Amino acid sequence: MKIMRVVKTLVSTNRIDTMGHRPLLVVQEKEGSAPSVAVDAVGCVPGDWVICVGSSAARDAAGAKDYPSDLTIVGIIDHWAP
Amino acid sequence: MKIMRVVKTLVSTNRIDTMGHRPLLVVQEKEGSAPSVAVDAVGCVPGDWVICVGSSAARDAAGAKDYPSDLTIVGIIDHWAP
Amino acid sequence: MKIMRVVKTLVSTNRIDTMGHRPLLVVQEKEGSAPSVAVDAVGCVPGDWVICVGSSAARDAAGAKDYPSDLTIVGIIDHWAP
Amino acid sequence: MKIMRVVKTLVSTNRIDTMGHRPLLVVQEKEGSAPSVAVDAVGCVPGDWVICVGSSAARDAAGAKDYPSDLTIVGIIDHWAP
Amino acid sequence: MKIMRVVKTLVSTNRIDTMGHRPLLVVQEKEGSAPSVAVDAVGCVPGDWVICVGSSAARDAAGAKDYPSDLTIVGIIDHWAP
Repeated sequence: MKIMRVVKTLVSTNRIDTMGHRPLLVVQEKEGSAPSVAVDAVGCVPGDWVICVGSSAARDAAGAKDYPSDLTIVGIIDHWAP
Repeated sequence: MKIMRVVKTLVSTNRIDTMGHRPLLVVQEKEGSAPSVAVDAVGCVPGDWVICVGSSAARDAAGAKDYPSDLTIVGIIDHWAP
Repeated sequence: MKIMRVVKTLVSTNRIDTMGHRPLLVVQEKEGSAPSVAVDAVGCVPGDWVICVGSSAARDAAGAKDYPSDLTIVGIIDHWAP
Repeated sequence: MKIMRVVKTLVSTNRIDTMGHRPLLVVQEKEGSAPSVAVDAVGCVPGDWVICVGSSAARDAAGAKDYPSDLTIVGIIDHWAP
Repeated sequence: MKIMRVVKTLVSTNRIDTMGHRPLLVVQEKEGSAPSVAVDAVGCVPGDWVICVGSSAARDAAGAKDYPSDLTIVGIIDHWAP
């Protein structure tokens, strides 16, 4: 899993039906690195340092075997000093 | 998921049957970065900033469990300033 | 999917049985980049620019769910100017 | 699989239920490289050099097909001089 | 698949049961690049140039659907001049 910081929410009105209404968040490994999009499964806010799971595990973690995610936030880190 | 920009459509006359007639698009993370090919599941046009899902999730997102995709466009981002 | 160029065929006499007699090709993203090995599912020749699918989709694309491939050529690009 | 060194344990009080109480460890390939988070399936301590498996294999290795891991420690290396 | 060179065998006494007694080998893409660990499914020796398969295909290639591998050697290359 990767350690990433939540930057902000992402709005995508035109998306496939199977994504449902799960919140999508922009995350990045560190200031200046390429942003990724993660599905939020724990309820976090911008600034949180979180654990993101990828690969096929991201789908179950997002709540269903056929959920179209390859990056899902599965935990908020209690204390993290990057 | 990755945030990518749609560059153009890609024509491949000689391809395997299971790809069907789904549109294939050239996408890239930013100007000058290596281009990738994504299957379009939402209907987007060149210039759009989109959400691309990879891993095994790309297959279901493309419409069928056995669709041969490892990168599928699942949403168009409403506003994105890279 | 990645856009790659076919360099040459690869001979591996000692290989696991499940690979069968499918042709293996050396491919690379551009001159000088690290070579990869892909299973040919469309019938291409050195010099062709092709679409390569990875992840679990590479297995089905190679013809069977248990085929041991993580990179399979699924289409030849009609025109490509890198 | 990757060869990584265990740095320390990671505490995440707010995490999804399916992660259970498995220990989460911060690991890295070498001093200064980006840290990752791995699920410990063998019982190791900070300073150990370990074998980490990724992809879908990380899930079974963590103990269950639906465990949300994409990086699991599957062995401690007896002697390793990086 | 990747083209890698076998460096040496790796000993891990403390490992999870499902790994069994399959030989683990240290492999690398070229002199000086980061070493990886691969499961040997063909019987190779240090110095061999081999084809390594990753992703979920590495599991079947290692002999069983639930074998915890994400990198398995599936063939020895007859002639390779890097």
